[in-house]
Amino acid sequence: MPTILGQNQYGKAENRVVRITRDGDTHHIKDLNVSVALSGDMDDVHYSGSNANVLPTDTTKNTVFAFAKEHGIESAEQFGIHLARHFVSSQEPIEVARIRIEEYAWERIATSDGNSKFIGADEVKHSFVRKGQETRTTQITFDGEKWEVISGLKDLTVMNSTNSEFWGYVKDRYTTLKEAYDRILATDVSARWRYNWTDDEQRMPNWEKSYEQARKHMLQAFAETYSLSLQQTLYQMGSRIINSRSEIDEIRFSLPNNHHFLVDLEPFGLKNDNEVYFAADRPYGLIEATVLRDGVEPKIPVDLTNL
Amino acid sequence: MPTILGQNQYGKAENRVVRITRDGDTHHIKDLNVSVALSGDMDDVHYSGSNANVLPTDTTKNTVFAFAKEHGIESAEQFGIHLARHFVSSQEPIEVARIRIEEYAWERIATSDGNSKFIGADEVKHSFVRKGQETRTTQITFDGEKWEVISGLKDLTVMNSTNSEFWGYVKDRYTTLKEAYDRILATDVSARWRYNWTDDEQRMPNWEKSYEQARKHMLQAFAETYSLSLQQTLYQMGSRIINSRSEIDEIRFSLPNNHHFLVDLEPFGLKNDNEVYFAADRPYGLIEATVLRDGVEPKIPVDLTNL
Amino acid sequence: MPTILGQNQYGKAENRVVRITRDGDTHHIKDLNVSVALSGDMDDVHYSGSNANVLPTDTTKNTVFAFAKEHGIESAEQFGIHLARHFVSSQEPIEVARIRIEEYAWERIATSDGNSKFIGADEVKHSFVRKGQETRTTQITFDGEKWEVISGLKDLTVMNSTNSEFWGYVKDRYTTLKEAYDRILATDVSARWRYNWTDDEQRMPNWEKSYEQARKHMLQAFAETYSLSLQQTLYQMGSRIINSRSEIDEIRFSLPNNHHFLVDLEPFGLKNDNEVYFAADRPYGLIEATVLRDGVEPKIPVDLTNL
Amino acid sequence: MPTILGQNQYGKAENRVVRITRDGDTHHIKDLNVSVALSGDMDDVHYSGSNANVLPTDTTKNTVFAFAKEHGIESAEQFGIHLARHFVSSQEPIEVARIRIEEYAWERIATSDGNSKFIGADEVKHSFVRKGQETRTTQITFDGEKWEVISGLKDLTVMNSTNSEFWGYVKDRYTTLKEAYDRILATDVSARWRYNWTDDEQRMPNWEKSYEQARKHMLQAFAETYSLSLQQTLYQMGSRIINSRSEIDEIRFSLPNNHHFLVDLEPFGLKNDNEVYFAADRPYGLIEATVLRDGVEPKIPVDLTNL
Repeated sequence: MPTILGQNQYGKAENRVVRITRDGDTHHIKDLNVSVALSGDMDDVHYSGSNANVLPTDTTKNTVFAFAKEHGIESAEQFGIHLARHFVSSQEPIEVARIRIEEYAWERIATSDGNSKFIGADEVKHSFVRKGQETRTTQITFDGEKWEVISGLKDLTVMNSTNSEFWGYVKDRYTTLKEAYDRILATDVSARWRYNWTDDEQRMPNWEKSYEQARKHMLQAFAETYSLSLQQTLYQMGSRIINSRSEIDEIRFSLPNNHHFLVDLEPFGLKNDNEVYFAADRPYGLIEATVLRDGVEPKIPVDLTNL
Repeated sequence: MPTILGQNQYGKAENRVVRITRDGDTHHIKDLNVSVALSGDMDDVHYSGSNANVLPTDTTKNTVFAFAKEHGIESAEQFGIHLARHFVSSQEPIEVARIRIEEYAWERIATSDGNSKFIGADEVKHSFVRKGQETRTTQITFDGEKWEVISGLKDLTVMNSTNSEFWGYVKDRYTTLKEAYDRILATDVSARWRYNWTDDEQRMPNWEKSYEQARKHMLQAFAETYSLSLQQTLYQMGSRIINSRSEIDEIRFSLPNNHHFLVDLEPFGLKNDNEVYFAADRPYGLIEATVLRDGVEPKIPVDLTNL
Repeated sequence: MPTILGQNQYGKAENRVVRITRDGDTHHIKDLNVSVALSGDMDDVHYSGSNANVLPTDTTKNTVFAFAKEHGIESAEQFGIHLARHFVSSQEPIEVARIRIEEYAWERIATSDGNSKFIGADEVKHSFVRKGQETRTTQITFDGEKWEVISGLKDLTVMNSTNSEFWGYVKDRYTTLKEAYDRILATDVSARWRYNWTDDEQRMPNWEKSYEQARKHMLQAFAETYSLSLQQTLYQMGSRIINSRSEIDEIRFSLPNNHHFLVDLEPFGLKNDNEVYFAADRPYGLIEATVLRDGVEPKIPVDLTNL
Repeated sequence: MPTILGQNQYGKAENRVVRITRDGDTHHIKDLNVSVALSGDMDDVHYSGSNANVLPTDTTKNTVFAFAKEHGIESAEQFGIHLARHFVSSQEPIEVARIRIEEYAWERIATSDGNSKFIGADEVKHSFVRKGQETRTTQITFDGEKWEVISGLKDLTVMNSTNSEFWGYVKDRYTTLKEAYDRILATDVSARWRYNWTDDEQRMPNWEKSYEQARKHMLQAFAETYSLSLQQTLYQMGSRIINSRSEIDEIRFSLPNNHHFLVDLEPFGLKNDNEVYFAADRPYGLIEATVLRDGVEPKIPVDLTNL
């Protein structure tokens, strides 16, 4: 046989599970999109179509929903850990389980502001509005011994309206760009960070607090960096997280440079004093890099931030 | 000539203008997507290709950016009014101008929380994160005499995790649905409301405050209504706005019923006590209706909420 | 009660039905996305939440799938007519039914080209590849007496690489555009045409042939028109259909002007002889118009092409 | 310094270039979306913001458009090779260039069918309609010595309406799926194949012919395989390409299982004899695997098919 099978994996993708927890009248929501990918002894199903080693993707879907009941959803990471452990430990042919999760945040609708006298004075505790803003992500991989947890976020759009310059760059035959001494810097943050928790014997991080703190440090570094290049800002964002959170060893960013071009208003007899910008779609600069704790080995795949 | 020209309009769509206002170190953003549609004496350009009456769409784009400098952007509505008046009053062949605007909200990145000791103690006042959540919309139409202002929002996703029932409906040969006495009610609100300001002689509403209040009342009505049908909730949302805001006479909603199906966990020996739901994509219920002040004539086009 | 209910409708949207017909080994596909909207005596469900007149949206979904079996899907139009008639005639409170359908085309995968000697010489007649290109649409409305059928297409992207000019337009203070004597003309055609079949007594058009012919005439008119403006091209496209197809009385287009800007290569010492273009995303010109048979009353809503 | 910089790259993404070639009245189109990513000696720009080694992303954009004139676009692969060689050989700090390209196909609008007598009898040779269907892709990587070319396609939607079964699988506590002996098999093909051309000394493949043949073999294998699992079909598709095209050594697929569920029509007294299906959106099965020539080392990144 002149062709052979290489790396392969399968499972059910994008299981949309919403878990409501009722604490008396006060309800809580977890809203996840869960994707399961299993790999192991799967040669036969590819070569001959024998499904003798195949747990159906439909079963992996059922497991997601059943586990939301059996284990609850404390955090996306904890939920993924329950699932990955189950698949690897319960099915002989499955050697590695990778669980990817997106989480959508909700906040409560405020009703007790004194203005809402129409129906009742009571605060409503079961009404929510989706927060919008970033999507939180995690990827849990388990091979029966070691864990890898890579969490992050995507689609967090930020902008500095000043404190950004770009000059002193290489100029070749195709260079026409003018140097900029006060420009808008805007990007949609896509970030993935790797936790150094790898073993059941280690103390597990507080996933919810860690996410909240990583996000906060990243935003503050973006705001507080006087930027000479988006690369410099990226490095500051990553460095701030590594320095602030001992449970995180590595972070990879994919940052589009969302160009805001100063509009030339001179043809109309007007001066544009950094006031009016055209927000362009394509093309965009794209800056990608890994920042990591000195001495650790990089493990986040270079292409992961595109997912 | 056996065929003739009917209603027609033209212009530049989706001009993405960002306006920065600098109040010392404190910056403010307005981030709009502006579409211009002009109509009037345009037979010739369709029949013969003569552009003698055609102001180029490129010019309408330039006007959007120039006006952002000349008039500033106090609100999307006020900006649209400046633009519509200009096109109708400055170009003889143009009889009606319709300006559609989407607005994206931004909030400040908090930096002075005491934890941010890395660079400086000062609060940064030029750093923003896009708020996500709903897109604010407005449509300004001017025919040289009267104004029509239809504002609103879209993609505001809300959920009640209880206080929703659905029963007592018609059953025919194709009905299999079980009655529900405690279900999730979730929707993506798309709403358009019409102001009764139509004339330069009238006092203009406070567009920013009116938007904020309409949004608040709508959300509170959604939260506070004990729902027997999404139609009932819709009517309460509209009615609350009409009753609270004298400047608004009419509102139209397009509300998808974002189905959250209770997952059957019995095959796994588990009881699902309104805890685990599958969030479905398609198909979805779609409820659309106009609510209006008694005595006024409805004017919001039935299809407008789909835009 | 100071607020009242205006126009309203409800139903299940985006029912994705695929119908396979087996003619021996030769299979045929119809792939539709069907949306149902019903209106009638629905005051109670809005005012009090009583569902006594409400056929559940879930039932309308079931009906779509059951009718695909009972009536087959000869064409999207014929299928919509079956559905609309059923809802209006079988449910007392329902006065008007509007069925919107999108259709996705498939073509056969060719297997008998002589090169495919791996498995067998036989042509496979149950394998398909989705055609891509345009989405076909129709909207059927029935009020118990009269029919309105508005069919069309969207997302049909076309380009002329020459035979397009744009000059002789109005110039005002904000005009900077240079006149063009040889430019690319490109657009994504969105079109809706109305049939003059309104009555069960009339002979029904051949919906499949009519679609195919309308599409062909529209494309040929686009290709064959030497264009001085996109408006002129639009009118020719519409006029060609009205003149060629007696069953169609009115057509409305929404045509974005997909700008292809000639790139300035002079800074690099190169001459761009209409060879290298930048395809821009936003903003874009947007040209919308109705073309109709002389003497008929326009009935296609102005905003329908945006759907 | 406790944090360090890892892998990094930068450039201008999604340059939308359209190249027209005029052969008398007959025009030809190449329509590409080109993304440039450069890496090399870039520590300074991350650590200090010094741009001394940074060729601006704006310059990489200009280069794309200038090269479309200087070199023409014979194929996406050849165009990417010109670009990658230029960046690595002309800029000392740049060690590796990766060019990603998407290509959109166009076909001619037929005008000389005898029915088109409105304007002239001549065939129009400058009018095109976008083909729709798949997007062709390529990724060229050059490190100054060796080339890596990974081409492919995405969004090619295919369906077999029979000759697909799924049974004999593992059943655990969470398994409820019924075995299927005649089901629809449908997927959106995403494939990336690696050429064994790595060196300027080797004879370069005919990129256009190779693409066309790889696509054809893949489609025929999909059509002709009697499938017991999507994994088996995937392997046949990959194997067919490796066996038919000596210039290709490895291929990776990402195949969603686009579920078409047989609708239960029994509640309505109807029998569904594999005729009426519900096309579901989410969740979906996801099958990913590499197929490679025996003896070669796999090099396509596992996550690349998601891009």
